Amino acid sequence: MPEAAVTIDPATLEDLLEFRRQRDWQQFHSFRNVATALLVEVAELLEIVQWTADAALPERLLEKRTDIEMELADVAILLSYLVHDLGIDLDAAVRRKLALNEERYPVALARGNSRKYDEL
Amino acid sequence: MPEAAVTIDPATLEDLLEFRRQRDWQQFHSFRNVATALLVEVAELLEIVQWTADAALPERLLEKRTDIEMELADVAILLSYLVHDLGIDLDAAVRRKLALNEERYPVALARGNSRKYDEL
Amino acid sequence: MPEAAVTIDPATLEDLLEFRRQRDWQQFHSFRNVATALLVEVAELLEIVQWTADAALPERLLEKRTDIEMELADVAILLSYLVHDLGIDLDAAVRRKLALNEERYPVALARGNSRKYDEL
Amino acid sequence: MPEAAVTIDPATLEDLLEFRRQRDWQQFHSFRNVATALLVEVAELLEIVQWTADAALPERLLEKRTDIEMELADVAILLSYLVHDLGIDLDAAVRRKLALNEERYPVALARGNSRKYDEL
Repeated sequence: MPEAAVTIDPATLEDLLEFRRQRDWQQFHSFRNVATALLVEVAELLEIVQWTADAALPERLLEKRTDIEMELADVAILLSYLVHDLGIDLDAAVRRKLALNEERYPVALARGNSRKYDEL
Repeated sequence: MPEAAVTIDPATLEDLLEFRRQRDWQQFHSFRNVATALLVEVAELLEIVQWTADAALPERLLEKRTDIEMELADVAILLSYLVHDLGIDLDAAVRRKLALNEERYPVALARGNSRKYDEL
Repeated sequence: MPEAAVTIDPATLEDLLEFRRQRDWQQFHSFRNVATALLVEVAELLEIVQWTADAALPERLLEKRTDIEMELADVAILLSYLVHDLGIDLDAAVRRKLALNEERYPVALARGNSRKYDEL
Repeated sequence: MPEAAVTIDPATLEDLLEFRRQRDWQQFHSFRNVATALLVEVAELLEIVQWTADAALPERLLEKRTDIEMELADVAILLSYLVHDLGIDLDAAVRRKLALNEERYPVALARGNSRKYDEL
């Protein structure tokens, strides 16, 4: 069921928090540090395809599937720490942003158009 | 319940996919493009605190709470598209990465230590 | 003479340092903060082409020429502060890195090949 | 003479271009690809201090001096390719951006203040 694939289980979050607690790493997890680590992980994800031509992309993704999964896992882990530590309701935040995007990108203007809302 | 806070609902993912479908934006959503957009959003998150001293961080996070929530929502949205499009089981990937991290960072060595595993 | 185009004049560096001194901004310019600001500027550069198809890239670069020049200027400015503050001889560092790259990427192996040295 | 330290020599740029020519790598050097590679290098620079507390920063910079120099060299190399390939006069661009910053950040308002110009 692909609908569930983008989420992590509450039990998994508990394990992430326990992993951190056991190592006493909360002291390093300021917002700035975790956000920086998140950025480094996304950069590592991008690095995988930095020299790959568009036409060669599907083959590259296949070849590097495991690396990509592990980088995306890192992104999800760090995002989870950030969201947890700030006490944010991520689903509610996403719904609010989606509502904002519906306003900024009306279908009539944005359909098939990749321009930013201030250039539409 | 903070345990649920880091996930987005399957219904929300459906709405994200529908938002994209209505605008015919799948054509722009190559792995490279969405990963690049994800990186840009994380950079915008970092920008919020780029000149903030550590001591002033809590006040800055309070002042910029809404901006931070919206940037984190963008991160979650783009991560969701990536994970969905690649057909990845994110929870399983996170559990595998966590198991790898347990090996790389044994509690005895890593406790209270922020060094990378290859420097431990 | 395009060969000179990638450098900035010593007089320009002096003006950058004077700009900072007048505003008493050295206090914000820790290595971490300036490196973070540098990253944010490069992300803004990337944002300009994040949804642009390869075939549409030349047209996009033309349309956004001024924005790109200003983002590259920001990158050069922040790089200059970093290099100055650390007391690095950038030309010597580049020559050492180039020598390392000559070893890592022998022409016979690397010619027409975009793989990283550890995958060659 | 620190004033010269932030620049690279025209002869060094020639060597960088020759390095690329010998490997036939111009084909991979689209604006997007080089900008992405530049971002990855800056992220690697940031990674060096991602978990370092502010108080421990000077010691960390000393310990990682060589790594930092090599990452900064990578940044300078990729910036040089970008600027060269676009035919930009970097010094002129920096001077124009500096003039813009003088307007955006008047000394009276910006002195000792790290806020962005739209928040001043």
